[in-house]
Amino acid sequence: MRLEELIKTNSAIVENELDKYTNTSDGYGLTEIMRYSLLSGGKRIRPFIAIESYKLFAKDGADIKKVLPFACALEMIHTYSLIHDDMPCMDNDDYRRGRLTSHKVYGEAKALLAGDALLTYAFDVAASNTLVSPKSVVLAVRALSEYAGFSGMAGGQMIDLDSAHNVNSYESLKEMHSLKTGALIKCATLLGYYASTDEPDKSVEKALETFANDVGIAFQIRDDILDRIADTGVLGKPVGSDDKNGKTTSLSYLTVEEAQKEVDKFTGEAISVMTKLYETYSASEDRTLADFAKYLAERNK
Amino acid sequence: MRLEELIKTNSAIVENELDKYTNTSDGYGLTEIMRYSLLSGGKRIRPFIAIESYKLFAKDGADIKKVLPFACALEMIHTYSLIHDDMPCMDNDDYRRGRLTSHKVYGEAKALLAGDALLTYAFDVAASNTLVSPKSVVLAVRALSEYAGFSGMAGGQMIDLDSAHNVNSYESLKEMHSLKTGALIKCATLLGYYASTDEPDKSVEKALETFANDVGIAFQIRDDILDRIADTGVLGKPVGSDDKNGKTTSLSYLTVEEAQKEVDKFTGEAISVMTKLYETYSASEDRTLADFAKYLAERNK
Repeated sequence: MRLEELIKTNSAIVENELDKYTNTSDGYGLTEIMRYSLLSGGKRIRPFIAIESYKLFAKDGADIKKVLPFACALEMIHTYSLIHDDMPCMDNDDYRRGRLTSHKVYGEAKALLAGDALLTYAFDVAASNTLVSPKSVVLAVRALSEYAGFSGMAGGQMIDLDSAHNVNSYESLKEMHSLKTGALIKCATLLGYYASTDEPDKSVEKALETFANDVGIAFQIRDDILDRIADTGVLGKPVGSDDKNGKTTSLSYLTVEEAQKEVDKFTGEAISVMTKLYETYSASEDRTLADFAKYLAERNK
Repeated sequence: MRLEELIKTNSAIVENELDKYTNTSDGYGLTEIMRYSLLSGGKRIRPFIAIESYKLFAKDGADIKKVLPFACALEMIHTYSLIHDDMPCMDNDDYRRGRLTSHKVYGEAKALLAGDALLTYAFDVAASNTLVSPKSVVLAVRALSEYAGFSGMAGGQMIDLDSAHNVNSYESLKEMHSLKTGALIKCATLLGYYASTDEPDKSVEKALETFANDVGIAFQIRDDILDRIADTGVLGKPVGSDDKNGKTTSLSYLTVEEAQKEVDKFTGEAISVMTKLYETYSASEDRTLADFAKYLAERNK
């Protein structure tokens, strides 16, 4: 299957699962608000990476049902972080993925609560994975909470809030993005692995984390470039908003050409790490994650 | 040991654990904000219930270390809910436990983030409990996420936000409190049980939930009474704030005398359910949870 078809296929599967998980009249109207953001058609990058990481390591004909709860949990955590980041006290964004943000539609209190409930539900969904061992579930829950928490994604957001003090160089900016974006991508690679085994190998975990960190940084810099040069219609959000908001991005330190060179450098490193992993797991002829790293580096939206 | 001494002892143990869990320079300043609310001297009711529920069922001389991670996770989730509930878009409270609320000290964005990070960390702490089986951990994580999520505590908060529409009788008010307060107390009794076994008995779970629901409702009504009649110095927050804020409480439907009768009725039911549980687990001479239900019903702060 060509990569773009696979992205569509995986995305449709994840979409369907996310719909099923939240299709309930429980929640006193809260699930409707959770669904508004969760089912608004994101790229589903983290679930894709989790699923393909699982397929790389699975020895059992890759029954992806084993990784789907983890993949959905990742997307729920990603979505909660977007809802909270968009709130007036954070980035104060009115639009996300071409639609009004949650707090613009439902008000701040309910948006806050929907974010809380999505974060909470992510752990329920991950912990209810009965197709893997309890030991695998515990590994997944620990990774989700560590990479989403104060030493991961939330820590990155904290740096961002204090960015006037903390982000004063290209290096510190990369550190922030390594947490804000990279942490959950790392978690995605690990969760795929944990769905395949409950006795993970430290060296594999380390390789996956390096791959994911490179992909995360390249992804973020490509995002900065697209915000400057993309077509608004293609991007689905206003172009030039970073400049308008005086936001510090990689383009505060680099030209567009230099930035794309960085994207290519980190992507090259990611592909090289993944190639070594393929060699170790030589049974696998699957080059999807390396191809996906390249795809993200070259994307136009 | 007398009950009040036991409350102090357990509280000190939990305090010490919460301190250790968050005593880290990770988090880019975020853990400091988490600690501000987490270590502000709450009653530690949920950890107490979890610990004593564990001691009721444990057959191994009650090494309470097995339940402490679960007890701390409960307190972290309780604290996150307070931080978010106090925010301007929710209840807009400036004081909590006699101190400025998190958003008054650190600003809304960081308070929001500290709440998110506490909720996230709760699952890390629970899942890192290596003194019980992975199966017990999975039971605990599922219970935490279900009782804190959209069909539990967050659902209760959602009803509260829509209370003008949804809470128009004493019965619907009780339903709201059964979720907002009761859900996490239920979870506390279950987590104590799960720390003692990874093959829980449905009928025990049901009895614990009934006990906890009764305790939760009695607790909330007693809270309403104290808000009307207590001494500000003893209570640690302004008396009469519910009336001042036009808040719907049990005293919107009942006189203080009727309300205290309800407290006593629910407490009596709770004690009766617990007495039956003691009879089943006749090895236990421990009457702590029944005594604690009585203590909560009669408390003055």
